[in-house]
Amino acid sequence: MGGVSTADRVPKQDRSRATRQRLLEAAVACLAERGWSGSTVSVVAERAGVSRGAAQHHFPTREDLFTGAVEYMAEERTTAIRALFPEGAADRRAVVAALVDLYTGPLFRAALHLWVAASSEEQLGPRVTELEARVGRETHRMAVDLLGADESRPGVRETVQGLLDMARGLGLANLLTDDAGRRERVVAQWGALLDEALGHAPGA
Amino acid sequence: MGGVSTADRVPKQDRSRATRQRLLEAAVACLAERGWSGSTVSVVAERAGVSRGAAQHHFPTREDLFTGAVEYMAEERTTAIRALFPEGAADRRAVVAALVDLYTGPLFRAALHLWVAASSEEQLGPRVTELEARVGRETHRMAVDLLGADESRPGVRETVQGLLDMARGLGLANLLTDDAGRRERVVAQWGALLDEALGHAPGA
Repeated sequence: MGGVSTADRVPKQDRSRATRQRLLEAAVACLAERGWSGSTVSVVAERAGVSRGAAQHHFPTREDLFTGAVEYMAEERTTAIRALFPEGAADRRAVVAALVDLYTGPLFRAALHLWVAASSEEQLGPRVTELEARVGRETHRMAVDLLGADESRPGVRETVQGLLDMARGLGLANLLTDDAGRRERVVAQWGALLDEALGHAPGA
Repeated sequence: MGGVSTADRVPKQDRSRATRQRLLEAAVACLAERGWSGSTVSVVAERAGVSRGAAQHHFPTREDLFTGAVEYMAEERTTAIRALFPEGAADRRAVVAALVDLYTGPLFRAALHLWVAASSEEQLGPRVTELEARVGRETHRMAVDLLGADESRPGVRETVQGLLDMARGLGLANLLTDDAGRRERVVAQWGALLDEALGHAPGA
């Protein structure tokens, strides 16, 4: 009320970081809802309440914005899941459920649009391939840690990989319909199989 | 040379069926390579060597052509896999490998483009949702038969469902890079876990 506005009191660097974050979040939401063909820097800038010029200052190209957004959100989600299990390997079935949850929300939907677009658009291909590999490695490392899986035992690495492949397949099955009921039963069954496989791994 | 051409000797109905089949095969190849945005009736007609008018006689709309193509190819593939295992349940690991193969070729790539487009395009949504459900049921039934899985036992239905979810996730992982080496190791490991789970199902 007539005094110094909040914006003036926040240092410029923090405002820039907040703008960047708003753009990244709007980009993931936009990609998840409209797909690659409906997602442009302008649409995201408007959604985030940021000028087109400011958006382009942060992200010079459409590819920068959307690959950056998927990477940022993946890091946020990974950090959030790790925070759910501060001790690690507490309850494997709860860990499996949390990992599968990674692939049922807007982040996976956005990533899927980006992957599929990258498979038929040359300028997107190499960047998304590299991004997918990096995010995949991080997710695998998190899964190994939280499941308390000993990858020096034969078959354990592939067991964890297969679990993450299944989680992505479950995400795909949730794309067009709400698959939560079926998914819950599949996760309960395969969570039990995984628990047994990790517990009785050869070499134990 | 100068005699009656082959085309003249083939009954009209057979020629129409052959044209339809060429269009369906060209539509899957086109969708797999160019994605939904690059796939139109005209592009497919040209690829199939068919006039645009003839293509529209068989498939009045773009949606008819591409949903029809994915359904046709899925039926062809299902029939081909069943033919590989005439006795059924001969070697479960070979069955798992054949099921996973369903999701690593052009058919899965085409279906994926269609699913992802359907998730953000209203006129495609209901048709693809219905198609996905129908193809999913057929594939599940085939998997149960070939694996010799007894679904009256608790957990067996979910075990087979989870396997097919994993197969789709493995297909996704193969979209941008050749993932054959890793996939083979995952399939070997989870094939063994599945074999054990189906063999020692509760109630056996």
